[in-house]
Amino acid sequence: MKILPEMVLELIEHLTILPGVGPKSAQRMAVHLLLKKPEEANKLAISLDNTLSMIKKCTKCRSLTIEPICNICLDEQRDKKTICVIENISDLLSLEQTGTYRGQYFILMGSLSPIDRIGPDELGIPLLINRVEQEAISEVILATNPTIEGEATAHYLTKKLPKDSKITRLASGIPVGTELTYVNDHTLFHALSCRKEVERI
Amino acid sequence: MKILPEMVLELIEHLTILPGVGPKSAQRMAVHLLLKKPEEANKLAISLDNTLSMIKKCTKCRSLTIEPICNICLDEQRDKKTICVIENISDLLSLEQTGTYRGQYFILMGSLSPIDRIGPDELGIPLLINRVEQEAISEVILATNPTIEGEATAHYLTKKLPKDSKITRLASGIPVGTELTYVNDHTLFHALSCRKEVERI
Repeated sequence: MKILPEMVLELIEHLTILPGVGPKSAQRMAVHLLLKKPEEANKLAISLDNTLSMIKKCTKCRSLTIEPICNICLDEQRDKKTICVIENISDLLSLEQTGTYRGQYFILMGSLSPIDRIGPDELGIPLLINRVEQEAISEVILATNPTIEGEATAHYLTKKLPKDSKITRLASGIPVGTELTYVNDHTLFHALSCRKEVERI
Repeated sequence: MKILPEMVLELIEHLTILPGVGPKSAQRMAVHLLLKKPEEANKLAISLDNTLSMIKKCTKCRSLTIEPICNICLDEQRDKKTICVIENISDLLSLEQTGTYRGQYFILMGSLSPIDRIGPDELGIPLLINRVEQEAISEVILATNPTIEGEATAHYLTKKLPKDSKITRLASGIPVGTELTYVNDHTLFHALSCRKEVERI
Protein backbone atom coordinates (compact mmCIF):
# COMPACT_ATOMS: atom_id res chain seq x y z
CA MET A 1 0.00 0.00 0.00
CA LYS A 2 1.30 3.42 -0.95
CA ILE A 3 1.26 5.98 1.87
CA LEU A 4 1.05 8.81 -0.65
CA PRO A 5 -0.33 8.76 -4.21
CA GLU A 6 2.16 7.59 -6.83
CA MET A 7 2.11 10.98 -8.59
CA VAL A 8 3.19 12.79 -5.40
CA LEU A 9 6.09 10.36 -4.97
CA GLU A 10 7.05 10.99 -8.59
CA LEU A 11 6.92 14.76 -8.05
CA ILE A 12 9.21 14.38 -5.01
CA GLU A 13 11.58 12.30 -7.15
CA HIS A 14 11.58 14.95 -9.90
CA LEU A 15 12.30 17.74 -7.40
CA THR A 16 15.55 16.03 -6.36
CA ILE A 17 17.07 17.06 -9.71
CA LEU A 18 17.36 20.58 -8.29
CA PRO A 19 20.90 21.33 -7.09
CA GLY A 20 21.31 20.88 -3.33
CA VAL A 21 17.91 19.24 -2.90
CA GLY A 22 17.83 15.79 -1.29
CA PRO A 23 14.84 13.49 -0.66
CA LYS A 24 13.78 15.22 2.60
CA SER A 25 13.87 18.75 1.14
CA ALA A 26 12.09 17.50 -1.98
CA GLN A 27 9.32 16.06 0.23
CA ARG A 28 8.98 19.39 2.02
CA MET A 29 8.96 21.28 -1.29
CA ALA A 30 6.30 19.01 -2.82
CA VAL A 31 3.95 19.42 0.15
CA HIS A 32 4.57 23.18 0.20
CA LEU A 33 3.82 23.49 -3.52
CA LEU A 34 0.74 21.27 -3.48
CA LEU A 35 -0.92 22.47 -0.29
CA LYS A 36 0.40 25.89 0.61
CA LYS A 37 1.10 27.52 -2.75
CA PRO A 38 -0.89 25.69 -5.45
CA GLU A 39 -1.47 28.84 -7.55
CA GLU A 40 2.15 29.93 -7.47
CA ALA A 41 3.20 26.31 -8.15
CA ASN A 42 1.00 26.32 -11.23
CA LYS A 43 2.70 29.51 -12.46
CA LEU A 44 6.08 27.87 -11.78
CA ALA A 45 5.13 24.81 -13.88
CA ILE A 46 3.97 27.00 -16.78
CA SER A 47 6.99 29.30 -16.55
CA LEU A 48 9.40 26.34 -16.51
CA ASP A 49 7.66 24.70 -19.45
CA ASN A 50 7.61 27.92 -21.54
CA THR A 51 11.20 28.87 -20.76
CA LEU A 52 12.47 25.38 -21.60
CA SER A 53 10.84 25.50 -25.01
CA MET A 54 12.16 29.00 -25.88
CA ILE A 55 15.61 29.35 -24.36
CA LYS A 56 18.93 28.60 -26.02
CA LYS A 57 22.63 29.33 -25.55
CA CYS A 58 24.07 32.47 -27.17
CA THR A 59 26.31 31.28 -30.02
CA LYS A 60 28.98 33.83 -29.07
CA CYS A 61 29.19 33.81 -25.26
CA ARG A 62 27.05 30.77 -24.23
CA SER A 63 24.75 32.89 -22.04
CA LEU A 64 20.98 32.27 -21.99
CA THR A 65 18.99 33.94 -24.76
CA ILE A 66 15.87 33.64 -26.87
CA GLU A 67 17.53 35.04 -30.00
CA PRO A 68 20.62 33.36 -31.51
CA ILE A 69 22.84 36.10 -29.99
CA CYS A 70 22.27 37.59 -26.52
CA ASN A 71 21.70 41.24 -25.59
CA ILE A 72 25.18 41.76 -24.18
CA CYS A 73 26.92 40.44 -27.31
CA LEU A 74 24.65 42.57 -29.50
CA ASP A 75 25.17 45.77 -27.48
CA GLU A 76 27.16 48.20 -29.68
CA GLN A 77 28.00 50.39 -26.68
CA ARG A 78 30.17 47.72 -25.08
CA ASP A 79 33.92 47.30 -25.55
CA LYS A 80 34.41 44.62 -28.23
CA LYS A 81 38.10 44.01 -27.49
CA THR A 82 37.91 42.73 -23.91
CA ILE A 83 36.47 39.36 -22.98
CA CYS A 84 35.82 38.15 -19.44
CA VAL A 85 35.83 34.35 -18.96
CA ILE A 86 33.51 33.15 -16.18
CA GLU A 87 32.28 29.81 -14.90
CA ASN A 88 28.57 30.49 -14.48
CA ILE A 89 25.65 32.69 -15.45
CA SER A 90 25.38 33.81 -11.82
CA ASP A 91 28.92 35.25 -12.13
CA LEU A 92 27.70 37.27 -15.12
CA LEU A 93 24.88 38.72 -13.03
CA SER A 94 27.26 39.51 -10.14
CA LEU A 95 29.80 41.21 -12.42
CA GLU A 96 27.09 43.21 -14.20
CA GLN A 97 25.80 44.39 -10.83
CA THR A 98 29.16 46.03 -10.07
CA GLY A 99 28.56 48.30 -13.08
CA THR A 100 32.31 48.57 -13.76
CA TYR A 101 32.75 46.07 -16.57
CA ARG A 102 31.60 47.03 -20.06
CA GLY A 103 33.27 44.37 -22.21
CA GLN A 104 32.26 40.97 -23.58
CA TYR A 105 31.80 37.69 -21.73
CA PHE A 106 32.44 34.03 -22.31
CA ILE A 107 30.68 31.56 -20.03
CA LEU A 108 32.34 28.18 -19.58
CA MET A 109 29.35 26.71 -17.68
CA GLY A 110 31.66 24.91 -15.29
CA SER A 111 35.37 24.27 -14.82
CA LEU A 112 37.79 21.58 -15.97
CA SER A 113 37.10 18.40 -14.04
CA PRO A 114 38.51 15.21 -15.61
CA ILE A 115 36.81 13.08 -12.93
CA ASP A 116 33.39 14.30 -14.13
CA ARG A 117 34.54 14.06 -17.76
CA ILE A 118 34.43 17.82 -18.22
CA GLY A 119 37.23 18.70 -20.59
CA PRO A 120 38.00 21.72 -22.81
CA ASP A 121 35.31 20.76 -25.36
CA GLU A 122 32.52 20.63 -22.77
CA LEU A 123 33.48 24.13 -21.63
CA GLY A 124 33.54 25.48 -25.20
CA ILE A 125 37.23 26.41 -24.93
CA PRO A 126 37.90 25.87 -28.70
CA LEU A 127 35.08 28.38 -29.38
CA LEU A 128 36.68 30.86 -26.96
CA ILE A 129 40.14 30.49 -28.55
CA ASN A 130 38.59 30.96 -31.97
CA ARG A 131 36.78 34.11 -30.79
CA VAL A 132 39.95 35.60 -29.29
CA GLU A 133 41.74 35.04 -32.62
CA GLN A 134 38.94 36.11 -34.97
CA GLU A 135 37.86 39.19 -33.05
CA ALA A 136 41.45 40.27 -32.27
CA ILE A 137 40.66 40.48 -28.55
CA SER A 138 43.25 42.63 -26.75
CA GLU A 139 42.57 41.45 -23.16
CA VAL A 140 41.18 38.21 -21.76
CA ILE A 141 40.17 38.53 -18.10
CA LEU A 142 40.19 35.10 -16.43
CA ALA A 143 37.44 35.36 -13.82
CA THR A 144 37.10 31.68 -12.96
CA ASN A 145 36.68 30.98 -9.23
CA PRO A 146 39.80 30.97 -7.00
CA THR A 147 39.19 27.28 -6.24
CA ILE A 148 41.39 24.34 -7.28
CA GLU A 149 39.20 23.67 -10.36
CA GLY A 150 38.89 27.33 -11.26
CA GLU A 151 42.65 27.89 -10.95
CA ALA A 152 43.36 24.78 -13.06
CA THR A 153 40.99 26.07 -15.74
CA ALA A 154 42.65 29.51 -15.68
CA HIS A 155 46.08 27.85 -15.93
CA TYR A 156 44.95 25.74 -18.90
CA LEU A 157 43.52 28.79 -20.66
CA THR A 158 46.74 30.77 -20.07
CA LYS A 159 48.64 28.07 -21.96
CA LYS A 160 46.15 27.73 -24.81
CA LEU A 161 45.08 31.29 -25.58
CA PRO A 162 46.81 33.11 -28.47
CA LYS A 163 50.13 34.62 -27.35
CA ASP A 164 49.39 38.12 -28.71
CA SER A 165 46.44 38.76 -26.38
CA LYS A 166 46.99 40.12 -22.87
CA ILE A 167 45.71 37.79 -20.15
CA THR A 168 44.69 39.03 -16.69
CA ARG A 169 43.29 37.28 -13.62
CA LEU A 170 40.88 38.76 -11.02
CA ALA A 171 42.73 39.83 -7.84
CA SER A 172 42.58 37.50 -4.85
CA GLY A 173 42.69 39.07 -1.39
CA ILE A 174 40.78 39.94 1.75
CA PRO A 175 37.07 40.49 1.01
CA VAL A 176 35.99 44.07 1.78
CA GLY A 177 34.27 44.28 5.17
CA THR A 178 35.93 41.15 6.59
CA GLU A 179 38.22 40.96 9.59
CA LEU A 180 41.70 39.49 9.09
CA THR A 181 41.08 36.96 11.87
CA TYR A 182 38.44 35.20 9.79
CA VAL A 183 40.41 35.04 6.56
CA ASN A 184 42.10 31.73 5.64
CA ASP A 185 45.84 31.27 5.18
CA HIS A 186 45.82 31.05 1.39
CA THR A 187 43.84 34.27 1.06
CA LEU A 188 46.13 36.06 3.50
CA PHE A 189 49.16 34.75 1.60
CA HIS A 190 47.71 36.19 -1.63
CA ALA A 191 46.79 39.47 0.02
CA LEU A 192 50.33 39.80 1.36
CA SER A 193 52.20 38.82 -1.79
CA CYS A 194 49.99 41.02 -4.01
CA ARG A 195 50.07 44.03 -1.64
CA LYS A 196 49.82 47.47 -3.25
CA GLU A 197 51.83 50.55 -2.46
CA VAL A 198 49.73 53.28 -0.89
CA GLU A 199 49.96 56.62 -2.64
CA ARG A 200 51.25 59.28 -0.26
CA ILE A 201 49.54 62.63 -0.34
CA MET B 1 18.90 46.41 -21.30
CA LYS B 2 18.11 43.05 -19.69
CA ILE B 3 21.16 40.88 -18.99
CA LEU B 4 19.00 37.74 -19.20
CA PRO B 5 15.73 37.21 -21.09
CA GLU B 6 12.62 38.31 -19.17
CA MET B 7 11.26 34.75 -19.04
CA VAL B 8 14.39 33.48 -17.29
CA LEU B 9 14.09 36.26 -14.69
CA GLU B 10 10.45 35.29 -14.19
CA LEU B 11 11.39 31.63 -13.75
CA ILE B 12 13.97 32.64 -11.09
CA GLU B 13 11.25 34.68 -9.35
CA HIS B 14 8.85 31.70 -9.43
CA LEU B 15 11.48 29.36 -8.00
CA THR B 16 11.78 31.53 -4.87
CA ILE B 17 8.36 30.25 -3.73
CA LEU B 18 10.11 26.99 -2.79
CA PRO B 19 10.78 26.77 0.96
CA GLY B 20 14.35 27.76 1.86
CA VAL B 21 15.14 29.05 -1.63
CA GLY B 22 16.37 32.65 -1.90
CA PRO B 23 17.22 34.66 -5.05
CA LYS B 24 20.77 33.26 -5.38
CA SER B 25 19.71 29.60 -5.04
CA ALA B 26 16.82 30.24 -7.43
CA GLN B 27 19.27 31.63 -9.99
CA ARG B 28 21.44 28.54 -9.63
CA MET B 29 18.40 26.27 -9.90
CA ALA B 30 17.08 28.01 -13.02
CA VAL B 31 20.42 27.73 -14.85
CA HIS B 32 20.78 24.10 -13.74
CA LEU B 33 17.28 23.23 -15.00
CA LEU B 34 17.58 25.09 -18.30
CA LEU B 35 21.11 24.13 -19.30
CA LYS B 36 22.15 21.02 -17.44
CA LYS B 37 18.91 19.05 -17.04
CA PRO B 38 16.40 20.31 -19.63
CA GLU B 39 14.76 16.89 -20.11
CA GLU B 40 14.36 16.21 -16.40
CA ALA B 41 13.14 19.80 -15.94
CA ASN B 42 10.48 19.17 -18.55
CA LYS B 43 9.35 16.08 -16.66
CA LEU B 44 9.29 18.12 -13.45
CA ALA B 45 7.06 20.77 -15.07
CA ILE B 46 4.63 18.11 -16.37
CA SER B 47 4.61 16.21 -13.06
CA LEU B 48 3.94 19.39 -11.08
CA ASP B 49 1.16 20.45 -13.42
CA ASN B 50 -0.54 17.01 -13.38
CA THR B 51 -0.25 16.54 -9.63
CA LEU B 52 -1.64 20.02 -8.94
CA SER B 53 -4.71 19.29 -11.03
CA MET B 54 -5.40 15.89 -9.45
CA ILE B 55 -4.42 16.09 -5.81
CA LYS B 56 -6.68 16.95 -2.88
CA LYS B 57 -6.72 16.67 0.90
CA CYS B 58 -8.17 13.52 2.47
CA THR B 59 -11.46 14.55 4.10
CA LYS B 60 -10.67 12.45 7.18
CA CYS B 61 -6.97 12.98 7.93
CA ARG B 62 -5.97 15.89 5.62
CA SER B 63 -3.19 13.84 3.94
CA LEU B 64 -2.63 14.06 0.18
CA THR B 65 -4.83 11.85 -1.98
CA ILE B 66 -6.42 11.55 -5.40
CA GLU B 67 -9.62 9.93 -4.05
CA PRO B 68 -11.78 11.72 -1.44
CA ILE B 69 -10.34 9.44 1.29
CA CYS B 70 -6.68 8.36 1.42
CA ASN B 71 -5.26 4.82 1.45
CA ILE B 72 -4.38 4.84 5.15
CA CYS B 73 -7.88 5.93 6.23
CA LEU B 74 -9.43 3.31 3.93
CA ASP B 75 -7.18 0.47 5.14
CA GLU B 76 -9.37 -1.97 7.07
CA GLN B 77 -6.33 -3.68 8.59
CA ARG B 78 -5.41 -0.61 10.63
CA ASP B 79 -6.51 0.15 14.19
CA LYS B 80 -9.52 2.49 13.96
CA LYS B 81 -9.49 3.59 17.61
CA THR B 82 -6.08 5.26 17.79
CA ILE B 83 -5.30 8.55 16.10
CA CYS B 84 -1.87 10.15 15.84
CA VAL B 85 -1.81 13.95 15.45
CA ILE B 86 1.15 15.24 13.45
CA GLU B 87 2.25 18.58 12.01
CA ASN B 88 3.34 17.58 8.51
CA ILE B 89 3.09 14.98 5.78
CA SER B 90 6.82 14.31 6.20
CA ASP B 91 6.10 13.23 9.81
CA LEU B 92 3.59 10.73 8.41
CA LEU B 93 6.26 9.27 6.14
CA SER B 94 8.79 9.11 9.00
CA LEU B 95 6.32 7.40 11.36
CA GLU B 96 5.26 4.91 8.70
CA GLN B 97 8.91 4.06 8.08
CA THR B 98 9.28 2.88 11.70
CA GLY B 99 6.67 0.21 10.92
CA THR B 100 5.42 0.21 14.53
CA TYR B 101 2.34 2.38 14.25
CA ARG B 102 -0.79 0.87 12.71
CA GLY B 103 -3.46 3.39 13.70
CA GLN B 104 -5.03 6.45 12.08
CA TYR B 105 -3.50 9.89 11.49
CA PHE B 106 -4.58 13.48 11.58
CA ILE B 107 -2.34 16.02 9.89
CA LEU B 108 -2.53 19.58 11.17
CA MET B 109 -0.36 20.97 8.33
CA GLY B 110 1.39 23.29 10.76
CA SER B 111 1.18 24.37 14.38
CA LEU B 112 -0.64 27.14 16.23
CA SER B 113 1.02 30.46 15.46
CA PRO B 114 -1.10 33.54 16.21
CA ILE B 115 1.57 35.81 14.68
CA ASP B 116 1.09 34.09 11.30
CA ARG B 117 -2.69 34.00 11.85
CA ILE B 118 -2.70 30.22 12.13
CA GLY B 119 -5.41 29.35 14.64
CA PRO B 120 -7.35 26.13 15.42
CA ASP B 121 -9.53 26.47 12.29
CA GLU B 122 -6.54 26.65 9.93
CA LEU B 123 -5.19 23.43 11.49
CA GLY B 124 -8.55 21.65 11.17
CA ILE B 125 -8.79 21.16 14.95
CA PRO B 126 -12.64 21.28 14.98
CA LEU B 127 -12.58 18.42 12.43
CA LEU B 128 -10.19 16.46 14.65
CA ILE B 129 -12.37 16.97 17.75
CA ASN B 130 -15.41 15.92 15.78
CA ARG B 131 -13.62 12.76 14.59
CA VAL B 132 -12.48 11.81 18.09
CA GLU B 133 -16.10 12.14 19.28
CA GLN B 134 -17.83 10.47 16.33
CA GLU B 135 -15.43 7.58 15.94
CA ALA B 136 -15.12 6.98 19.70
CA ILE B 137 -11.33 7.17 19.52
CA SER B 138 -9.75 5.57 22.58
CA GLU B 139 -6.27 7.12 22.31
CA VAL B 140 -5.01 10.35 20.76
CA ILE B 141 -1.21 10.41 20.35
CA LEU B 142 0.04 13.99 20.19
CA ALA B 143 3.07 13.78 17.92
CA THR B 144 3.57 17.50 17.26
CA ASN B 145 7.20 18.62 17.33
CA PRO B 146 8.87 19.24 20.71
CA THR B 147 9.31 22.93 19.76
CA ILE B 148 7.59 25.92 21.40
CA GLU B 149 4.86 25.96 18.72
CA GLY B 150 4.44 22.19 18.74
CA GLU B 151 4.18 22.08 22.54
CA ALA B 152 1.66 24.94 22.55
CA THR B 153 -0.43 23.08 19.97
CA ALA B 154 -0.28 19.87 22.03
CA HIS B 155 -1.25 21.83 25.13
CA TYR B 156 -4.22 23.42 23.34
CA LEU B 157 -5.37 20.02 22.05
CA THR B 158 -5.10 18.50 25.53
CA LYS B 159 -7.56 21.12 26.77
CA LYS B 160 -9.99 20.83 23.86
CA LEU B 161 -10.17 17.09 23.14
CA PRO B 162 -13.08 15.09 24.62
CA LYS B 163 -12.37 14.10 28.25
CA ASP B 164 -13.17 10.42 27.75
CA SER B 165 -10.34 9.76 25.30
CA LYS B 166 -6.84 8.95 26.54
CA ILE B 167 -4.22 11.45 25.38
CA THR B 168 -0.53 10.57 25.05
CA ARG B 169 2.52 12.53 23.92
CA LEU B 170 5.61 11.15 22.14
CA ALA B 171 8.53 10.71 24.56
CA SER B 172 11.24 13.38 24.60
CA GLY B 173 14.77 12.28 25.44
CA ILE B 174 18.25 11.63 24.14
CA PRO B 175 18.22 10.59 20.45
CA VAL B 176 19.54 7.06 19.96
CA GLY B 177 23.17 7.09 18.85
CA THR B 178 23.93 10.54 20.29
CA GLU B 179 26.47 11.34 23.01
CA LEU B 180 25.22 13.08 26.14
CA THR B 181 27.79 15.86 25.66
CA TYR B 182 26.01 17.06 22.52
CA VAL B 183 22.49 17.02 23.92
CA ASN B 184 20.94 20.34 25.02
CA ASP B 185 19.82 21.13 28.58
CA HIS B 186 16.08 20.85 27.92
CA THR B 187 16.45 17.43 26.34
CA LEU B 188 18.64 16.21 29.18
CA PHE B 189 16.14 17.59 31.71
CA HIS B 190 13.37 15.60 29.96
CA ALA B 191 15.49 12.46 29.71
CA LEU B 192 16.24 12.67 33.42
CA SER B 193 12.75 13.42 34.65
CA CYS B 194 11.17 10.76 32.43
CA ARG B 195 13.80 8.11 33.24
CA LYS B 196 12.64 4.50 33.15
CA GLU B 197 13.41 1.76 35.61
CA VAL B 198 15.59 -0.98 34.15
CA GLU B 199 14.19 -4.45 34.48
CA ARG B 200 16.59 -6.65 36.43
CA ILE B 201 17.15 -10.13 35.16
